[in-house]
Amino acid sequence: MGKEHKGTNITWHASRVSVTTREQLLGQQGYVVWLTGFSGSGKSTIACLLEERLIREGHPAYVLDGDNVRHGLNRDLGFSAQDRDENIRRVGEVAAMFSKAGVVAIAAFISPYAKGRQEAREAAGDDAFVEIFLDTPIAECEQRDPKGLYKKARAGQISDFTGIDGPYERPPNADITLHTERFTPPECIEQILQFLGSRHLLAARHTH
Amino acid sequence: MGKEHKGTNITWHASRVSVTTREQLLGQQGYVVWLTGFSGSGKSTIACLLEERLIREGHPAYVLDGDNVRHGLNRDLGFSAQDRDENIRRVGEVAAMFSKAGVVAIAAFISPYAKGRQEAREAAGDDAFVEIFLDTPIAECEQRDPKGLYKKARAGQISDFTGIDGPYERPPNADITLHTERFTPPECIEQILQFLGSRHLLAARHTH
Repeated sequence: MGKEHKGTNITWHASRVSVTTREQLLGQQGYVVWLTGFSGSGKSTIACLLEERLIREGHPAYVLDGDNVRHGLNRDLGFSAQDRDENIRRVGEVAAMFSKAGVVAIAAFISPYAKGRQEAREAAGDDAFVEIFLDTPIAECEQRDPKGLYKKARAGQISDFTGIDGPYERPPNADITLHTERFTPPECIEQILQFLGSRHLLAARHTH
Repeated sequence: MGKEHKGTNITWHASRVSVTTREQLLGQQGYVVWLTGFSGSGKSTIACLLEERLIREGHPAYVLDGDNVRHGLNRDLGFSAQDRDENIRRVGEVAAMFSKAGVVAIAAFISPYAKGRQEAREAAGDDAFVEIFLDTPIAECEQRDPKGLYKKARAGQISDFTGIDGPYERPPNADITLHTERFTPPECIEQILQFLGSRHLLAARHTH
């Protein structure tokens, strides 16, 4: 035998940790919570409260929203119909990746089209996707107008604004429907947690 | 007092869980491990072994590579110079999001350009980015040729192939340089873990 090159006999191939093995080892399951509804319906408020609650109970969770997506991953996208679809497509794919990594991805986007929401569901898988419809009346959202966008839409400074001159396709079979005009944010969170519990998505690993 | 509309007085605004609060509550810190090197240098092998090791020790970790990115998030991208840059840009942004969520993102991409790697570092933040250079000689990579790509590149069926007729900008200041032609994969993993430990990036929460 001559000199042997140590690396030569190494098999260089990759094996992937399965989602199940990951869940067993980490003691946690990832999934996607997808919040859809008008601007001002309360998506970000609910998303951030839910994230904090889950993290406090030991579940890694992460909010995906316009703030962290439009300034980073999707900063190359504008607001044309095509770019809006691509925005939601990418968020759906990233949310699915978080879910596969064992994290609860909480996506908060108007996401007015059923097709985009359905694609997000398919990327994550049906068992790992919870769709929450914030069914807040448009009048209430316009009254809140936290970003002053309805005012601009009424003044014609923004066009294709969802609920004013842009369509919103209501989810026919949302897993949870929230009425943020009648319930406080903490009450909405309880409704969500109750549903997650019923789907066995809150198996705590340890509570802080 | 007249009838009060319950929702009217609710402040609908979002507050975000800070990275520090998240780390304290979850007992774990996220960061990005970025593997760069020629095709066949062992990036996927190292990435998957590292992922498994970290997960077994209770650290959520997730591999980002061509397999899960090119078929999902980046399936709209081809292999033009522009699309390759965009591929790496998006991966850098997603890796940074995982890191902020408390997960160790392990990115395994040839990523031949210093600019793309630098942008990924900036997205995550310098303290949360570990660059690993797989400094495997091109001859060794070509001999391994696990995907048959070097053969195709030599036959002219693929052009701009990194190391053959495409450039690779060597990282001048990688945090770790691995020599996969001289060390076995488990030995490489030990070198990485030693470095991560020295940077206090292995604070275990609990071991399985």
